[in-house]
Amino acid sequence: MKILIIGGDGYLGWPTAMHLSKQKHQVFLIDDFSKRTIENQNSVTPLVNIETMENRVKTWNSLKIGKKIKFSFGTLVNHRFIYEELKKIKPDHIIHYGEQPSAPYSMAGRSEAVFTQNNNIIGSLNLLFGIKKYCPNTHLIKLGTMGVYGTPNIDIEEGFIKIRHNNRSDKMQFPMKPLSYYHCSKAADSINLYFASRAWGLKATDLNQGVVYGIDTPETSLNKKLNTSFHYDHIFGTVINRFMVQASIGKPLLVYGKGSQTRTFLNINDTLQCVELAIKNPANKGEYKVRNQFTEVFTIKQLALLVKQSAKNIGINAKIKYIKNPRKESPKHYFNPSNKSFLKLGLKPKKLNSNFIQSNINKIIIQKENIDLQTISPKIKWSK
Amino acid sequence: MKILIIGGDGYLGWPTAMHLSKQKHQVFLIDDFSKRTIENQNSVTPLVNIETMENRVKTWNSLKIGKKIKFSFGTLVNHRFIYEELKKIKPDHIIHYGEQPSAPYSMAGRSEAVFTQNNNIIGSLNLLFGIKKYCPNTHLIKLGTMGVYGTPNIDIEEGFIKIRHNNRSDKMQFPMKPLSYYHCSKAADSINLYFASRAWGLKATDLNQGVVYGIDTPETSLNKKLNTSFHYDHIFGTVINRFMVQASIGKPLLVYGKGSQTRTFLNINDTLQCVELAIKNPANKGEYKVRNQFTEVFTIKQLALLVKQSAKNIGINAKIKYIKNPRKESPKHYFNPSNKSFLKLGLKPKKLNSNFIQSNINKIIIQKENIDLQTISPKIKWSK
Repeated sequence: MKILIIGGDGYLGWPTAMHLSKQKHQVFLIDDFSKRTIENQNSVTPLVNIETMENRVKTWNSLKIGKKIKFSFGTLVNHRFIYEELKKIKPDHIIHYGEQPSAPYSMAGRSEAVFTQNNNIIGSLNLLFGIKKYCPNTHLIKLGTMGVYGTPNIDIEEGFIKIRHNNRSDKMQFPMKPLSYYHCSKAADSINLYFASRAWGLKATDLNQGVVYGIDTPETSLNKKLNTSFHYDHIFGTVINRFMVQASIGKPLLVYGKGSQTRTFLNINDTLQCVELAIKNPANKGEYKVRNQFTEVFTIKQLALLVKQSAKNIGINAKIKYIKNPRKESPKHYFNPSNKSFLKLGLKPKKLNSNFIQSNINKIIIQKENIDLQTISPKIKWSK
Repeated sequence: MKILIIGGDGYLGWPTAMHLSKQKHQVFLIDDFSKRTIENQNSVTPLVNIETMENRVKTWNSLKIGKKIKFSFGTLVNHRFIYEELKKIKPDHIIHYGEQPSAPYSMAGRSEAVFTQNNNIIGSLNLLFGIKKYCPNTHLIKLGTMGVYGTPNIDIEEGFIKIRHNNRSDKMQFPMKPLSYYHCSKAADSINLYFASRAWGLKATDLNQGVVYGIDTPETSLNKKLNTSFHYDHIFGTVINRFMVQASIGKPLLVYGKGSQTRTFLNINDTLQCVELAIKNPANKGEYKVRNQFTEVFTIKQLALLVKQSAKNIGINAKIKYIKNPRKESPKHYFNPSNKSFLKLGLKPKKLNSNFIQSNINKIIIQKENIDLQTISPKIKWSK
């Protein structure tokens, strides 16, 4: 299969690329390095320095484990670029990770919010027009986020819900209540994508993903030049990754608010499993398929306690510090999202446990001298 | 009150400006003339030539009926412009008509879809940041569209719906299923606006408006230099206006599909009433209030029959011609939207009737030589 990965330089894009190449798919990557630019803009760096894209691809291809990966530099915001790529490649599947992924970044100010929404909404709109023009039978797998649902007082279904109202009923898109301008951009994306499937018959899968954690996959572990960009900073660092880094240097785990916010999570290796399952079970023509992509649900406090206990097991005394929540989110709320869809397709979740956290903390400790403490505490507030 | 109208040069913006000025409000207008540019791009013109904005404002101000209207040229897409205006004016209310309003235009191709979404979503996002920075207590009234709801199989409520699911319930945003990339942009707008009210405490009213018809208001009728831009073309012409123009020159009324599509409608004078009621009943701090703004529901076929009959009453034999629907829309569907909110506030609907249509057809006949038949039939298809 020919698979185009948009955002192939990212935390998830690069491990996905190697995973699929290993399975003898022909993998094409594009990226505009906008995430590396935002890193520079905010003076944050991944825990381990990441090779240039060209070097990563060279390293992987030299191992001859899978089919050769090809990379092109360019952005979805430039439609001429993506049109050319689609015309040339005519991929069977597109995996679209190519969006600005940080909620705090999108809340930093006007310029960041506009960058996020322009990059994500307009970029994806260019992609839709390109698919319609050059490869209307291509299956588009777009990464969405569980954050589009917010925290409603009812069970969260996968994209659609049967609503009964005044003795009638309809299956409708699950109402969205996004948590930041980043999450709003993902909601807008989903509305456009669903429309394109109805209007043009595109094949679309929207993966509403939880918070991903973890440092490595079987492929990134093969060679340090194949590392993926593990972030622990206030812009790109997800909560479990931040906690593990804080524990590894004996600093308090910073919990936003009381930590009773409940969220969905998955191991980076389960992202790879899910995306693979989405490829094997594509949407039909004109179908807009939504799958919730997570394996477990935790409160932030539960995670802090688990990391604290795991650290203790390896002789580290980590403290938990509760700080004022910089975000606007319900401190206490009902939360019961479904993830049946991937389980039905055969997903075998790698559950979070102390062993995993201990081994990750040990890996982080080796890189201790790279950690920039300044960049962990939140600096961006949802409202001033 | 200080009222800023964005899109003050438009079909609704200009009559709203005069209506509010007459009531001794201090009215400020901005417009970037992007609609006039799209008219040029597509070679369509309003039925009656419209004065330049400067001449309209001069004419109105010289009549000394209300407070002087002030106009500034500029676009929301340039945040520096709207920031300056908000800083200077600090309006009590903003009426935001400043969006690309044509569904067919948004479906013409990539460039038009991107223009629409960039102008509408990013422009409005700049506006939100401007309000937060310079006038956080300003009440923002944004014009939305009934088209964001699509045609669900349940009753359409006003913005929110109480959903019962698995023995729990929540009041949630009514699920959206927009009918074009234009309607998608309005859905994205609403998601951003609702988020801004939650995150920043902005006061926001979203008016989901039906299809507006009619040529004049008491103020536009005062002087031909005060006309508003009545469109009958395939880009900006709404269905009743198109039918009346077709009838007035003895051409068949072109019905898309079987005409069983059902939509909401209101007289241009009722738009003015509604906007006035929205000003008098503003949203509270942190509130996102949605009102459905229409007075009647018709199928397209019903409208064609009504226009045909009305034309007959004044001696015109109009035919109805059913053509292939260029849009993607359900030919037959349930449709029962609520508009209680404005009725409760005292809206007195001006219902559509034969007298109204006859008098409008007579007005159109006077301008007969201006009608460009070429521009009435639909040229833009939802899918090719």
